[in-house]
Amino acid sequence: MKIQPLADRVLIEPAAAEEKTIGGIIIPDTAKEKPLQGTVVAVGKGTKDEEMVLKAGDQVLYGKYAGTELEHEGKKYLIMRQSDVVAVLA
Amino acid sequence: MKIQPLADRVLIEPAAAEEKTIGGIIIPDTAKEKPLQGTVVAVGKGTKDEEMVLKAGDQVLYGKYAGTELEHEGKKYLIMRQSDVVAVLA
Amino acid sequence: MKIQPLADRVLIEPAAAEEKTIGGIIIPDTAKEKPLQGTVVAVGKGTKDEEMVLKAGDQVLYGKYAGTELEHEGKKYLIMRQSDVVAVLA
Amino acid sequence: MKIQPLADRVLIEPAAAEEKTIGGIIIPDTAKEKPLQGTVVAVGKGTKDEEMVLKAGDQVLYGKYAGTELEHEGKKYLIMRQSDVVAVLA
Amino acid sequence: MKIQPLADRVLIEPAAAEEKTIGGIIIPDTAKEKPLQGTVVAVGKGTKDEEMVLKAGDQVLYGKYAGTELEHEGKKYLIMRQSDVVAVLA
Amino acid sequence: MKIQPLADRVLIEPAAAEEKTIGGIIIPDTAKEKPLQGTVVAVGKGTKDEEMVLKAGDQVLYGKYAGTELEHEGKKYLIMRQSDVVAVLA
Amino acid sequence: MKIQPLADRVLIEPAAAEEKTIGGIIIPDTAKEKPLQGTVVAVGKGTKDEEMVLKAGDQVLYGKYAGTELEHEGKKYLIMRQSDVVAVLA
Repeated sequence: MKIQPLADRVLIEPAAAEEKTIGGIIIPDTAKEKPLQGTVVAVGKGTKDEEMVLKAGDQVLYGKYAGTELEHEGKKYLIMRQSDVVAVLA
Repeated sequence: MKIQPLADRVLIEPAAAEEKTIGGIIIPDTAKEKPLQGTVVAVGKGTKDEEMVLKAGDQVLYGKYAGTELEHEGKKYLIMRQSDVVAVLA
Repeated sequence: MKIQPLADRVLIEPAAAEEKTIGGIIIPDTAKEKPLQGTVVAVGKGTKDEEMVLKAGDQVLYGKYAGTELEHEGKKYLIMRQSDVVAVLA
Repeated sequence: MKIQPLADRVLIEPAAAEEKTIGGIIIPDTAKEKPLQGTVVAVGKGTKDEEMVLKAGDQVLYGKYAGTELEHEGKKYLIMRQSDVVAVLA
Repeated sequence: MKIQPLADRVLIEPAAAEEKTIGGIIIPDTAKEKPLQGTVVAVGKGTKDEEMVLKAGDQVLYGKYAGTELEHEGKKYLIMRQSDVVAVLA
Repeated sequence: MKIQPLADRVLIEPAAAEEKTIGGIIIPDTAKEKPLQGTVVAVGKGTKDEEMVLKAGDQVLYGKYAGTELEHEGKKYLIMRQSDVVAVLA
Repeated sequence: MKIQPLADRVLIEPAAAEEKTIGGIIIPDTAKEKPLQGTVVAVGKGTKDEEMVLKAGDQVLYGKYAGTELEHEGKKYLIMRQSDVVAVLA
């Protein structure tokens, strides 16, 4: 059974070690909001206001407090709106 | 007598045991807002801004504080806007 | 003299006993906002953003704090926007 | 010299005795916001978002805190947006 | 050198005695917000959302806290958006 | 190196003596927000919602707390949205 | 691996010494919000509401609290919406 995000939401599997992420991006420890990194697992179909540009497999950065946590078959996921994703690693 | 949601609302029957839901999704106990699971019983006709993509029988995840509770013929239901539903299980 | 709601408002006569409503819906006593039940008496003509789907005679559910109370010829009414009505009983 | 409301505003002469209004509508004394009654004296030309449906002579109900008070040739008036008027008596 | 309001703003010269205005309108001393009176001196060109209906010479009523004060060649003026003007005297 | 404002922003050089400005406008010392005066140095290209009507050389009035200060080659400037400019002197 | 901003976001490398920036702009120490300077490294594809006018290599000024910090291959970056950039140096 798969989790299919609705509308402009994306399902993300956070990177294992959030402080030392894949791709060599180290997130500094400051007072500012820090983006975290993960892998897109599934995307919604978008809305008329928000076309989906992300796809499964994309490595993305997102805000620390973005999205909603859930756990499925032993893995932790985040589900958030595409607009809460700030960048993709390419 | 049936409950027919208006506009972009959906009527949901919450899963019996909310902490151990069907489909194998276990919701962890954290400080973040946690989605809960249920079954769509009826949907509104949508609005010009929100087309309905959910249908009766869909297994869905929704935010913990989403919707309004009601009780009908001994069963508890939630009525909420489709946009408060974050994902469908497929 | 009749009360004609303006724009997208509806005039509702609340069900006599609000805790034990017609149609067999019992509203549980919880901390969440509870919908109440009533009968639509008159509807506005709608606006360009909100087409009227309710009509006189509809049994409806609405939020506890929705609308404005008034009294006319010994009966109590509520006047509220159609969007504050969450469901119709059919 | 006449007061001509601008845009989607209406000029209203409140009913003399607000607690016991014409048309037989008695407003109950509760904690909820109570509509008051008056007579439309003049209306604006409307805006592209708000067409005027009220006209001079209409008996209307409006929210207790709606509008701005003014006094002209010994009479008290209220000026408010048409959208603050909840119903017309017909 | 003239002050030309931008967009949907109007330049107003407040009536000399604000409590006893021209046109015979006496503003009562109540807790509600009271409109004040003045003469339009100059108007902006409007915006695509707000067409100008006021013109120089119009006697207008406006909210007590509307606009920004300025002084030019010994006279006090107010500059405010047209939508803060509630009525014109005709 | 020139500062080119983006979108609907304008770069303004404030008048030297802000309390006694050119053009004879004296800003009174009251509790209300007071507009200040300056000269437009550069303007952005506008947006689809905001066409630019100001041009370099315009003498303008703007709100006391509008914009962001910066210093370039020994001169102080303000950068603000065109909509924060209330009037032009002509 | 490159950081590709999403939607209307831009990736900026802040100027090395923020108090004494390239281009000769010295930011004064006042109570007002001060713009900082940096170089655009990458830009998103824009949205239907926000066309991208910035490009890689642009020297830009932005608000002190704009954007989100991140670190990549030993360099610090900021990622922010284009609308948080107030000016470009040309």
